[in-house]
Amino acid sequence: MSSPANLARYLPILEWGRSYNRSILTNDLMAAVIVTIMLIPQSLAYALLAGLPPVVGLYASILPLMLYAVFGTSRTLAVGPVAVISLMTASAAGAVAAQGSAEYLEAAITLAMLSGVMLAVLGFLRAGFLANLLSHPVISGFITASGILIATSQLKHILGISAGGDNWPAMLGSLASTISDSNGWTLTIGVSATLFLFWVRKDGKPALLKLGLKPRAADMTAKAGPVAAVVLTILTVLALDLGNKGVKLVGAIPQGLPPFALPSADLSLIEQLWVPALLISIIGFVESVSVAQTLAAKRRQRISPDQELVGLGAANIASAFSGGYPVTGGFARSAVNFDAGAETPAAGAFTAVGIALATLFLTPLLFSLPIATLAATIIVAVLSLVDLKTPGQLWRYSKADFAAHIATIGITLLAGVELGVIAGVAVGLLLYLWRASRPHAAIVGRVPETEHFRNVERHKVFTVPHVLSIRIDEALTYLNARWLEEYVLERVAERPELRHVILMCSAVNEIDASGLESLEAINHRLGDGGLGLHLSEVKGPVMDRLKRTHFLDELNGKVFLSQNRAFSELSRDNGEPPPPVDHYLARGMI
Amino acid sequence: MSSPANLARYLPILEWGRSYNRSILTNDLMAAVIVTIMLIPQSLAYALLAGLPPVVGLYASILPLMLYAVFGTSRTLAVGPVAVISLMTASAAGAVAAQGSAEYLEAAITLAMLSGVMLAVLGFLRAGFLANLLSHPVISGFITASGILIATSQLKHILGISAGGDNWPAMLGSLASTISDSNGWTLTIGVSATLFLFWVRKDGKPALLKLGLKPRAADMTAKAGPVAAVVLTILTVLALDLGNKGVKLVGAIPQGLPPFALPSADLSLIEQLWVPALLISIIGFVESVSVAQTLAAKRRQRISPDQELVGLGAANIASAFSGGYPVTGGFARSAVNFDAGAETPAAGAFTAVGIALATLFLTPLLFSLPIATLAATIIVAVLSLVDLKTPGQLWRYSKADFAAHIATIGITLLAGVELGVIAGVAVGLLLYLWRASRPHAAIVGRVPETEHFRNVERHKVFTVPHVLSIRIDEALTYLNARWLEEYVLERVAERPELRHVILMCSAVNEIDASGLESLEAINHRLGDGGLGLHLSEVKGPVMDRLKRTHFLDELNGKVFLSQNRAFSELSRDNGEPPPPVDHYLARGMI
Repeated sequence: MSSPANLARYLPILEWGRSYNRSILTNDLMAAVIVTIMLIPQSLAYALLAGLPPVVGLYASILPLMLYAVFGTSRTLAVGPVAVISLMTASAAGAVAAQGSAEYLEAAITLAMLSGVMLAVLGFLRAGFLANLLSHPVISGFITASGILIATSQLKHILGISAGGDNWPAMLGSLASTISDSNGWTLTIGVSATLFLFWVRKDGKPALLKLGLKPRAADMTAKAGPVAAVVLTILTVLALDLGNKGVKLVGAIPQGLPPFALPSADLSLIEQLWVPALLISIIGFVESVSVAQTLAAKRRQRISPDQELVGLGAANIASAFSGGYPVTGGFARSAVNFDAGAETPAAGAFTAVGIALATLFLTPLLFSLPIATLAATIIVAVLSLVDLKTPGQLWRYSKADFAAHIATIGITLLAGVELGVIAGVAVGLLLYLWRASRPHAAIVGRVPETEHFRNVERHKVFTVPHVLSIRIDEALTYLNARWLEEYVLERVAERPELRHVILMCSAVNEIDASGLESLEAINHRLGDGGLGLHLSEVKGPVMDRLKRTHFLDELNGKVFLSQNRAFSELSRDNGEPPPPVDHYLARGMI
Repeated sequence: MSSPANLARYLPILEWGRSYNRSILTNDLMAAVIVTIMLIPQSLAYALLAGLPPVVGLYASILPLMLYAVFGTSRTLAVGPVAVISLMTASAAGAVAAQGSAEYLEAAITLAMLSGVMLAVLGFLRAGFLANLLSHPVISGFITASGILIATSQLKHILGISAGGDNWPAMLGSLASTISDSNGWTLTIGVSATLFLFWVRKDGKPALLKLGLKPRAADMTAKAGPVAAVVLTILTVLALDLGNKGVKLVGAIPQGLPPFALPSADLSLIEQLWVPALLISIIGFVESVSVAQTLAAKRRQRISPDQELVGLGAANIASAFSGGYPVTGGFARSAVNFDAGAETPAAGAFTAVGIALATLFLTPLLFSLPIATLAATIIVAVLSLVDLKTPGQLWRYSKADFAAHIATIGITLLAGVELGVIAGVAVGLLLYLWRASRPHAAIVGRVPETEHFRNVERHKVFTVPHVLSIRIDEALTYLNARWLEEYVLERVAERPELRHVILMCSAVNEIDASGLESLEAINHRLGDGGLGLHLSEVKGPVMDRLKRTHFLDELNGKVFLSQNRAFSELSRDNGEPPPPVDHYLARGMI
């Protein structure tokens, strides 16, 4: 029944697929080769971070990319395992099973399944707006704290020890108590790889430019730094036989395509994992959409956040069916894909083929890869996420945003990723609601010789003691309905001579049912005290809705088209005959 | 260290106590006598509703009133057991112990203690704004559904059977399965008392007026209807010896003052009860503050919601220490207190003395009071809470508010009071966030021959193809930051000739850190596309904060004091020399 345009909305492949041609194919293939080379060590490393066998990272980089290519709206987003989601997976799966057990792997697959279903459902409900609950300060605080947690969690692999913990104090304590077991060879490889990767990241491109490479080639080659580290450390291990000297290696990786298997539907597991799965979904969605929007805007393309939910949902369900774990659009890989010239999501599908080929033929070569090299890759990647400038900027700009940022960092470090996200959202919402419950309002008076009304505290304006004009700078909703009553009635209680109150509604974009009840209550209370309540400059749509109620019939006063007309008419009603115009002129009031 | 004024803020008794005199004393004593007579049957009935021994209702009406008199800010609020809180107590205590057991009473006392501590802490944190989370439609839906639940729960006492359930389907099912055990005498007494009380409520005052009573005396006498029902049914029981014919009676009530006892601090009990205690605190606070504000406004007095939290907290802690259960300010009793002429909280303290005397000397007289009479009192009182007009009014006024109202009623009836409140708050917040994430904005153009800019869709206005003016009618916060980016970039994508975008900020009361980041992102993206971004009519405080950031240095455009100046200057910059004024005049554009 759907029209083709409607179908293309849900299957973006129908749109870009129609204009696919040979030149686009060449560009997409080029990009896919480069991204594949970058993704192999990254996928292994992130699976390690998630506490899973390295091959699971490869599995999560095949089928999900294909599905995203069909359902996703970003032309250049590269989907797969990412650092923060891997850490969250480790934390959630670690709460229900021990790392290395079959139950742990099952929990990771279940997380991908739950997260996929949740994302897809939210997409069909067009509920992308839920991502708004995460403010920028909360997201950046969460990412900074996650970066610190991730880097700390990898120190054990650099030192060659077994340490644990899923919050910072526990991690540091565990490291301190096991540091004496460090292995010298592992430490040498880990520290060398880390320093090498930092150097490549910072000075690799300039060095390659000096060697005579063209800028784009130098850039791409520098991005392949982790591949160089992998190759160099494998050769070192083989040359010095470090596998027999206590250096932990990746070891045998099962060869072959991912197993197609129905994820288990264990209800008690689902009950334990649905909250972390929801958090993984939201964090993953926010990260992915931010990346996709940034890249789309560079080429003046558009993405649809609601359809992105469907695309990421499909990718995660595919990950669960092929033995993978939760995935999302990652920043680093998408940027490489974009820079390498990818033009359509087909590049992602080609990357998937590349990873599949690697899984089939390349894994034996990785037997002697030291775990410490993968840990170094992760540390260098995540430390760039740690952002130490933001707290100072937020402090200067907005104390409330600063509070949300610091609360998120603190609680994430001290209590782990899940409570960190929840606390960030809660603090952000509470601060928002606190501000929304105390909106801005001003008592206004007429600016002499004009028809303008301005704040009496900021401007020299004309007022009369028996008329109070209040300008409300906010929609009247249930969050501030109580405030409105208090504010108006307190201002009235201060002024015994008062006879009329005018609410100037030029900035009132909406009045919900609670706001309306507060207006009714104010009207009754002012009426009991013999005062009139008037409205001025009510917006058209707001007025239309008020007309559907009895409020306007019961109002002890009038609705004026302009504040000036309201003030002019009511200021003459002071219980005495109005003074002649000369009276005002003589006082310089008009 | 506190100044006397500061101390009086926390101890309002210091303020009104100073001007206390003989005439106020007389009025307070009069009101106390009337409220005491009304409170005795009500306290017994609400304890019954809470599933507690009747005497607990009396205990909860002594010390809490004294403490509220010291810490509360309302002159006329009457604190004690109320219907909705009693139902919530029954639901929470019933989840951890069986009615009639010592553990059940302990749970009720613990609820009072927890609720008291929470209210007091929220008061010291000045967190009264949290009550804003409950919108009017949610509160009225909750009260309607609670009224239906309470009335249904009392039918068993009218029928003389034992039925249970804490949601509507369960209650109705339990009633249906036990209705065959009904006791004829109980039913006769219950139905007669119910009809009598309905009649007194509706026609009592007119009847008494016809008998020649003065209006005020007739009003007060009619309010004593429940006392008449109590006396008449006790006499009937004694005359017909109904106690031996299966009519359940109140029986022996322990005589004497409430026991002073430390509430238990059982950690596992606290863990089970803190969520219901929080909900009881919030619902109790909202009910009490609404009543107190309504009454205070009638005499042009003020209450302080934050200090009310402290007053209610003290009252509940006192209730816990004297064997009572959660209390709050009730509507019916406060209205009677007010009408009877109470002038200060001392009236509440005198009422407490009255109830204490009743507990000491009157309880033996209540031995033969039928439980059915108390049930009739409750049914008649709560059915006035059921409000069937609100859903229709909300439907006409606001579909979102209607949805929150109906969801609260439905979930409260089907799943009980606790989930009902939580669902109401959640639905209200989600709808609010959904609307906040899609604020109003308009593309504007200049109204001919003026300097005003209006919505292009509603007015005939002048625009030029290379300048886009967008008026944003909302503060830029994290809830709509993503929307802003999408809205602006979509409008830009539609217009290939565009060279300048002006954001007209006259209604932007705030820009939080997320809003600022979105502006920065828009600025970068427009810059990448060779477009200028300009702001106009930025408010003073917003501009002050923007000046503390790098945003203004990085802006690809200017900040204009007025929209008119921005449009005039930018519309001349179309890459060609500006056309002569005749060009516009000839086209009727200016």
